[in-house]
Amino acid sequence: MARIVMKFGGTSVADLDRIRNVATRVKREVETGHEVAVVVSAMAGVTNQLVKWCGDLSPLHDAREYDVVVATGEQVTTGLLAIALQTVGVDARSWQGWQVPIRTDSAHGKARIEDIDGSLLVERMGQGQVPVIAGFQGVEPVRNRIATLGRGGSDLSAVAVAAAVRADRCDIYTDVDGIYTTDPRIVPRARKLAAVAYEEMLELASVGAKVLQTRSVELAMKQRVRVQVLSSFEDKPGSLVVDEDEIVEQPLVTGVAYSRDEAKVTLRRLPDKPGIAATVFGPLSEANVNVDMIVQNLGTDGTTDMTFTVGKADLPRARDVLEAQRGSIGFEAMLADPEVAKISIVGIGMRSHAGVAATMFRTLADKGINIQVISTSEIKTSVLVGVEYTELAVRALHTAYGLDGPA
Amino acid sequence: MARIVMKFGGTSVADLDRIRNVATRVKREVETGHEVAVVVSAMAGVTNQLVKWCGDLSPLHDAREYDVVVATGEQVTTGLLAIALQTVGVDARSWQGWQVPIRTDSAHGKARIEDIDGSLLVERMGQGQVPVIAGFQGVEPVRNRIATLGRGGSDLSAVAVAAAVRADRCDIYTDVDGIYTTDPRIVPRARKLAAVAYEEMLELASVGAKVLQTRSVELAMKQRVRVQVLSSFEDKPGSLVVDEDEIVEQPLVTGVAYSRDEAKVTLRRLPDKPGIAATVFGPLSEANVNVDMIVQNLGTDGTTDMTFTVGKADLPRARDVLEAQRGSIGFEAMLADPEVAKISIVGIGMRSHAGVAATMFRTLADKGINIQVISTSEIKTSVLVGVEYTELAVRALHTAYGLDGPA
Repeated sequence: MARIVMKFGGTSVADLDRIRNVATRVKREVETGHEVAVVVSAMAGVTNQLVKWCGDLSPLHDAREYDVVVATGEQVTTGLLAIALQTVGVDARSWQGWQVPIRTDSAHGKARIEDIDGSLLVERMGQGQVPVIAGFQGVEPVRNRIATLGRGGSDLSAVAVAAAVRADRCDIYTDVDGIYTTDPRIVPRARKLAAVAYEEMLELASVGAKVLQTRSVELAMKQRVRVQVLSSFEDKPGSLVVDEDEIVEQPLVTGVAYSRDEAKVTLRRLPDKPGIAATVFGPLSEANVNVDMIVQNLGTDGTTDMTFTVGKADLPRARDVLEAQRGSIGFEAMLADPEVAKISIVGIGMRSHAGVAATMFRTLADKGINIQVISTSEIKTSVLVGVEYTELAVRALHTAYGLDGPA
Repeated sequence: MARIVMKFGGTSVADLDRIRNVATRVKREVETGHEVAVVVSAMAGVTNQLVKWCGDLSPLHDAREYDVVVATGEQVTTGLLAIALQTVGVDARSWQGWQVPIRTDSAHGKARIEDIDGSLLVERMGQGQVPVIAGFQGVEPVRNRIATLGRGGSDLSAVAVAAAVRADRCDIYTDVDGIYTTDPRIVPRARKLAAVAYEEMLELASVGAKVLQTRSVELAMKQRVRVQVLSSFEDKPGSLVVDEDEIVEQPLVTGVAYSRDEAKVTLRRLPDKPGIAATVFGPLSEANVNVDMIVQNLGTDGTTDMTFTVGKADLPRARDVLEAQRGSIGFEAMLADPEVAKISIVGIGMRSHAGVAATMFRTLADKGINIQVISTSEIKTSVLVGVEYTELAVRALHTAYGLDGPA
């Protein structure tokens, strides 16, 4: 017997038939002898309607009232799923954030969970009842008001609840059936991974494989919550996201990720002196522009070139900020190129093996792909290439690291 | 300066434009210098959708979960109206039943308000903030769960909130513009009443003039809350429902009401002995059949005839119950007639004036209308007539008691 938290997203509870389907799945786990708690999102489309109403009334609406309106979406699902569970003979009861309570800070619309009191939930589960908990919401204790965690926050709710009730596993049911070695739309021979380490998942998520919200993976890693990603529409095992110690066979590279959301900026002929990096990146940070990859070339005449990437959406702002600081930074020219893609190989095996990155560079060279920027971390190597090479690069690397499944 | 509770029903908040219109009305009262609290219903149609979902999942759903689902309708309106008020420069905040708190008993789906703590609301109103309170809902304190008051319960919420904050007036905005001397669809010369006594309103409501929910009038009478009924779509004064002492000019008859919702039952040749009424009405009461008018004719041969009315919807059940008890009651025949209407004249002036009912009987006789049953109370006289005479009887009485307005 295990204690399991099951989380169902908006498409999994989009209508009454799907809610009945969820009830059947929950019932199966209960009948296996597990203690089960469920975390649900709003029915697909509902949140968008509620958000639109708030925006139509005022583009600058009170985030506290936005939370009051939007939190009703999850509340409806909890009541309906509790009824559906009771209808198939499973004892169940709905829980709103303020009832558990799930305590958050006061950052309405993007609140952080501070503390979950799991005692009532554990008590009910012990009595054989299934708590059906509203995801995405909590209560901020100072003014006793509803606070929401921001879009996609139901994953975070599920992981936090799993930690609070010391669950053996947190199953995230979604519309994909697991985590793949790379995007199957680009590489048909991509394979579903049986298990991924937290650290790998973080790197994969941050470079574009958006199956799980980054914050929920961070929380799972911190609280050592074992997460499983699986499909709510098919009966297949999913992918586990767990501590690396649990992963028996560790390949050198676990997956190949890509992102087309970045743009490259190059500053030419900067004065090559101490503190120049701070002069460039200080103003960008103040303007809330996130900088990712950074390369500095050594010059010979007392000047240097600097290249870095920013989010594509931030590019106009980054250019304005740098142009305004041109005098104090002292660069000669600024070049910007949004036509780039970041390709990354990720794997905890890279930590203990040399030469993994070399295979990457050779593979790309063999395909005639020019590498514009390189950046590395303990378990990831990323390169920036021309955006038109995205698919070619991903496919070549997937094959080179032996990740291809059966054709 | 006065303290006012304003209540807006579902049609008054049916879409964003109407919610903006409500905000404008509230702003006007605030700018007059009043302290204002607002009670709102769900947007028209929303509650029906939520109720339908629960019913579709299971006809016998858990009332506690039904309450969780249905209470979201009012919650959405509170948040949207708070945003709309802020947008026109009025400080406002939403309040759910559990936040006020509005404490109820545990009769989910038809809960009774037990206690409202008005202190936080009064404090905020004193600071110039408008509380926007979810009608129709509260929290039952034992299990900390949401409880709803049953359909139409938002009127009750408004009156109870008005009592809790010691408001000078509770304004009920609705889709009619006040209380009339009779149904204007039948009598075009019906007049809007400036003021009606609580007792009159109760009699008018219970015989079919359903402007205010009966329970909310009872509560207003008990707590001495002055209620005003007025239109949310027109700028006209409405009708006050107040203590009779406040009504300066008291006519003999305030209004003429009618109901086609009753059916007549006659039991022929019952044994004329003590306790026979209990034998008849005991089983009906146990079967939850409400009996209204009752007449017993004295017989000459040790038997008697008994005639009474029940709700039309209850007629089949009433017949079954009586037929099953035929042996113990001992009647010879049972006749049922659903083709009847109850016509009532209502007025606190009747208490102190004789002969008011005589005018009713003479007027109906002059029109050739046969009276089947008569029942009287302190401030009401009702007669049962053939349903085809409804309009004729109402019009004749309206004229006879001098209620006609200008043509």
